[in-house]
Amino acid sequence: MPAPVRIVLIGAGRAGRVHANSLVNHVAKGALVGLVDSVPGALEETGAMFGVDARFTSLEEALYKLDFDAVVITTPTFTHKALAVMAMDGGKHVFSEKPMALSLDECDAIIQASERNGVLLQLGFMRRFSPEFAAAAERINAGEIGQPMMVKSLTHGPGLPPAWARDLKTSNGMLAEVNSHDWDCTRWLMGSNPERVYVEVANFKGAARGVDTPNFYDNVLVNIRFENGGLGSISGICPCDYGYDARVEIVGDRGVMQIGEMQGLPVVVCTNRDQGLITPIYRTWPERFAWGYIHEMEHFVESIQTGTPPKVGGVDGRWAVAGVLAGTKSFLEERPVRLREILEAVV
Amino acid sequence: MPAPVRIVLIGAGRAGRVHANSLVNHVAKGALVGLVDSVPGALEETGAMFGVDARFTSLEEALYKLDFDAVVITTPTFTHKALAVMAMDGGKHVFSEKPMALSLDECDAIIQASERNGVLLQLGFMRRFSPEFAAAAERINAGEIGQPMMVKSLTHGPGLPPAWARDLKTSNGMLAEVNSHDWDCTRWLMGSNPERVYVEVANFKGAARGVDTPNFYDNVLVNIRFENGGLGSISGICPCDYGYDARVEIVGDRGVMQIGEMQGLPVVVCTNRDQGLITPIYRTWPERFAWGYIHEMEHFVESIQTGTPPKVGGVDGRWAVAGVLAGTKSFLEERPVRLREILEAVV
Amino acid sequence: MPAPVRIVLIGAGRAGRVHANSLVNHVAKGALVGLVDSVPGALEETGAMFGVDARFTSLEEALYKLDFDAVVITTPTFTHKALAVMAMDGGKHVFSEKPMALSLDECDAIIQASERNGVLLQLGFMRRFSPEFAAAAERINAGEIGQPMMVKSLTHGPGLPPAWARDLKTSNGMLAEVNSHDWDCTRWLMGSNPERVYVEVANFKGAARGVDTPNFYDNVLVNIRFENGGLGSISGICPCDYGYDARVEIVGDRGVMQIGEMQGLPVVVCTNRDQGLITPIYRTWPERFAWGYIHEMEHFVESIQTGTPPKVGGVDGRWAVAGVLAGTKSFLEERPVRLREILEAVV
Amino acid sequence: MPAPVRIVLIGAGRAGRVHANSLVNHVAKGALVGLVDSVPGALEETGAMFGVDARFTSLEEALYKLDFDAVVITTPTFTHKALAVMAMDGGKHVFSEKPMALSLDECDAIIQASERNGVLLQLGFMRRFSPEFAAAAERINAGEIGQPMMVKSLTHGPGLPPAWARDLKTSNGMLAEVNSHDWDCTRWLMGSNPERVYVEVANFKGAARGVDTPNFYDNVLVNIRFENGGLGSISGICPCDYGYDARVEIVGDRGVMQIGEMQGLPVVVCTNRDQGLITPIYRTWPERFAWGYIHEMEHFVESIQTGTPPKVGGVDGRWAVAGVLAGTKSFLEERPVRLREILEAVV
Repeated sequence: MPAPVRIVLIGAGRAGRVHANSLVNHVAKGALVGLVDSVPGALEETGAMFGVDARFTSLEEALYKLDFDAVVITTPTFTHKALAVMAMDGGKHVFSEKPMALSLDECDAIIQASERNGVLLQLGFMRRFSPEFAAAAERINAGEIGQPMMVKSLTHGPGLPPAWARDLKTSNGMLAEVNSHDWDCTRWLMGSNPERVYVEVANFKGAARGVDTPNFYDNVLVNIRFENGGLGSISGICPCDYGYDARVEIVGDRGVMQIGEMQGLPVVVCTNRDQGLITPIYRTWPERFAWGYIHEMEHFVESIQTGTPPKVGGVDGRWAVAGVLAGTKSFLEERPVRLREILEAVV
Repeated sequence: MPAPVRIVLIGAGRAGRVHANSLVNHVAKGALVGLVDSVPGALEETGAMFGVDARFTSLEEALYKLDFDAVVITTPTFTHKALAVMAMDGGKHVFSEKPMALSLDECDAIIQASERNGVLLQLGFMRRFSPEFAAAAERINAGEIGQPMMVKSLTHGPGLPPAWARDLKTSNGMLAEVNSHDWDCTRWLMGSNPERVYVEVANFKGAARGVDTPNFYDNVLVNIRFENGGLGSISGICPCDYGYDARVEIVGDRGVMQIGEMQGLPVVVCTNRDQGLITPIYRTWPERFAWGYIHEMEHFVESIQTGTPPKVGGVDGRWAVAGVLAGTKSFLEERPVRLREILEAVV
Repeated sequence: MPAPVRIVLIGAGRAGRVHANSLVNHVAKGALVGLVDSVPGALEETGAMFGVDARFTSLEEALYKLDFDAVVITTPTFTHKALAVMAMDGGKHVFSEKPMALSLDECDAIIQASERNGVLLQLGFMRRFSPEFAAAAERINAGEIGQPMMVKSLTHGPGLPPAWARDLKTSNGMLAEVNSHDWDCTRWLMGSNPERVYVEVANFKGAARGVDTPNFYDNVLVNIRFENGGLGSISGICPCDYGYDARVEIVGDRGVMQIGEMQGLPVVVCTNRDQGLITPIYRTWPERFAWGYIHEMEHFVESIQTGTPPKVGGVDGRWAVAGVLAGTKSFLEERPVRLREILEAVV
Repeated sequence: MPAPVRIVLIGAGRAGRVHANSLVNHVAKGALVGLVDSVPGALEETGAMFGVDARFTSLEEALYKLDFDAVVITTPTFTHKALAVMAMDGGKHVFSEKPMALSLDECDAIIQASERNGVLLQLGFMRRFSPEFAAAAERINAGEIGQPMMVKSLTHGPGLPPAWARDLKTSNGMLAEVNSHDWDCTRWLMGSNPERVYVEVANFKGAARGVDTPNFYDNVLVNIRFENGGLGSISGICPCDYGYDARVEIVGDRGVMQIGEMQGLPVVVCTNRDQGLITPIYRTWPERFAWGYIHEMEHFVESIQTGTPPKVGGVDGRWAVAGVLAGTKSFLEERPVRLREILEAVV
């Protein structure tokens, strides 16, 4: 058996720990050999939690001091481009969390660095590796529901995102931070690129939670026309409070398919006939996509071991960013926006 | 169109009102023309509720004063035989609630009266007319799951039965009053008669609810061997408090089938991610079998109009009583009891 | 008990038979006393089916020859205004199928005729009377999920609509003929009027089915902003072939609610582990809304008997038409359309 | 972090590979260091599959040549006692697949070896570690459904067991090989030991599959009375062909709980409205209990690392064997059998 892929995790926060858990406990072909975080507390805590002694406050330091093969980037979006390019220029393969970056220019810089250095790039669209989504895509590709005509995808997250993730200046807001998965999976399952989008937003909870970020919204509804004539819908709500909800419905010219469900563990209880049956709901995204996170990391290390491009890479990440930018322009200017406007604006 | 079948309802209580509602609101071919109940209050109240002015305190009086075609009997079990025979000897068709009677002798008296007078007899096994059970039976008969091998049926009812219905002297206890439907539908779906039964009972709630009836039980579990070699299970819990629960699972040599579900209206709500998804449960039997009660009454009046024997009659009611008697003997004597012992004991 | 409300049914086609069935078999307070259809064959067939001997080829004739209280209109949309106004001017209460009419002017003419003649007007939005929708609305009104923020409603119908119903000249296409229910129930459940809509359409099946109607579409996706700031989505697919699918999801600031489901009868079967579990799907709208059709007719006759305005009337029908007109303008002009544009254009 | 627990797997067949997969890919605290199987082909194939070079044709050889901490035994039941005692006498901790052994004498020999050598013993009742069962048990213990009154557990397996596993001489038949999990989990969830059992069996498929083993049965239905007065039911069907089905229902004096479901991946499809909705079913036990197998192995290595007795050990395994023996006696002698008869018969 080949030696495990040596991975440095950049970002010791919540998403970082999910990937650390995968690498330490579930992906035998990968080894978590180092940890980078500029916040010492998180660095020490996460390092101790997963038994990783090689801890660094910067990627530069890790590149200088440690021998490794690849990085997993889980830091805030505005840092992705710099970190990815630095790692790639250092010869490391890159797994980057979504959103890929803030702009198409940044996306292009990452893609070019990947090509320039001959290193692999995988985006953190774990839905593609979640067993039910993977099985669904395979069945759609096999023609089971015919030509996809309409796809609807939703991500509703329980809690208020951190300040940087709701400010259009430091992220691209909820459409990016929460709904990147929907941008990716609608395009993936429809088998076509978005051509035109229209977006409505609403802000119901911001004021009560002390959010005064300009253009903040906690509800978003996206209408998509795809290049193949198909239609798409994305909805985002964050904070929705009621759970972590990620589901897709797709109708083809031969049938309908529902992917995912709200129900968590199959335990149904009734103790009061006036209340009814109670079943757990998924509370968080690590619960909901437990296998998806494991399988995407397996795929990353296996891609490195075999030198094969990952199934989901820079082009996919870039399309999701393009959708976000078009969608944001749409609700700011209150009109449908063609993707062409966004794609042609790249320097 | 033929004139509606004129029906007198005997028993103005809860079950009576369910049938009155069917006849008045949903079965155009039937007309509720009279009401009999020995309790004046119930008689007046139910009569007013359904606009029935012809009210009687005895069946004799109704037979003497009113012109009608058939009776629906919903009084306590120990009255069934006398009422049914009297109605039949008066030339009336009979729809009798379950259990048919207290003993096989009583069942035989009813069956003989039906034959003697050339009138029809239908038993109130409404499951057979509930759309999902009817569809299931049709599919089983068409061979969809192959030869039935094992059938499990449960009825769990929310509230404590009335005193007469839990006393082995005036009814045959829960096995009869609650689980008659299971005795009937296991035999019906298995397509074979029970050959041997073994029963265990338990009493968990009686004491706290002031029940000191001898041999009272609120939990029962029946093991059945059918004549065709198939196996069956019946469970009864009453009071179960949590709702009205009536479900069947059947496995054939080609597949499995589940019939019925606990969920009532399809409304799923989550307002607290620590609690989970909430869906209504069926609270009562009139809710659960709303269409079954309508369709069985339609079948009764159509059988009368066309002179055709109802799909479920005296023989079916008698087998359910035989099962109850064998089951009761089993738990009292703590041994498996063959149906033959019961059937051969008939005078 | 008051005498049954005497009703003449106008339109002896499929929808007509659904209401005839309700009146004849399930709504004791209503009597179907006459039938009007300009197509003799349908008139005779439906008349015979429900035992209605008073049959007319025009409403004029019925008004002239028969004594009755109300009409139920189930003819094509382009006839609604003339028939409703004629019936009302003849002093009859009107139950009108959806869509109410082709234009707001027509809607206004109907509303005015209702007021002028002091007769009642009910629209055929049966979802409001379907038990799960009624229960859901009550729970939303009671605050269970808090302030509604986002509502999604879909209607996917199995078969190709008739020619008149897909031509923008004689109906208003699918948005009206199929999705009227969604226009009504999103507004109803959100508790607010639509303010702005954006619509994308697609045509995937038309060509293969020989449809060359200009502007024909078989997929539609509507994005709505409501006056209260809430968001809405409507999707329509017709023909979808896979069944009759009508579901709603609504998220409030305190929780989520799903109303309706695809599953028909609760019978789950597995006969092949490579295929999986199979459950019936609703095949048609009369199946799906069996109780809704009964309860809306009960409501109509009870409203007449008590002289109370029905819960869903002309204003509701008019808003649905306004939504349809705004939506149609949106996809034709490829831009968001404010309802104000439509409402202010009324003569 | 402590060094991983070094484990030798005995039995390179299907169950062995499930545990090998857990140890190699998902249980970082455990290391699969050696493999034992008397069949050279299986040994080489499984060894290659998991990268285990230390391969032995007997446990003796492994004990002699390799340094390790514990064994996982997945060989046929009739070998368990000898292997477990040998491993324990060699100072190794033991994880044993179910059934624990063929007789209570054998169980006692294993328990005594464990005590004599101060080594740990865990039984392979993976349901206890499957997230939904673990959560359910915790909630029952917390009193959510009150005092358990009735528990029903089923295991239906798709394929015909191997010859040794259906012969009462070399195993204890289906009640042991398939339903051990039900014997354990009914006792566990009821919180009480079985007191009396009654069993009916049937043979529907044996002949067609060429099985002429004496007393072969492919359907079994067990009725249990527990020491605390509660009732239990176990059903087994093997081969059931339709999938791998493992579900439990339990009713307490305050409510009902369903644990597990047939549905596998949440992907619902409809492509034909006459057929209906299709959802995957669990096809095999490794799929159904994917997390249960991982978590039970985690528990085993953590128990060894911390020197704590596993949550499920020799006493639990012995009770399951006692139930099997009583149940087998019951159907052979066609009478209820008290556990006391079995327990007191031990030499």
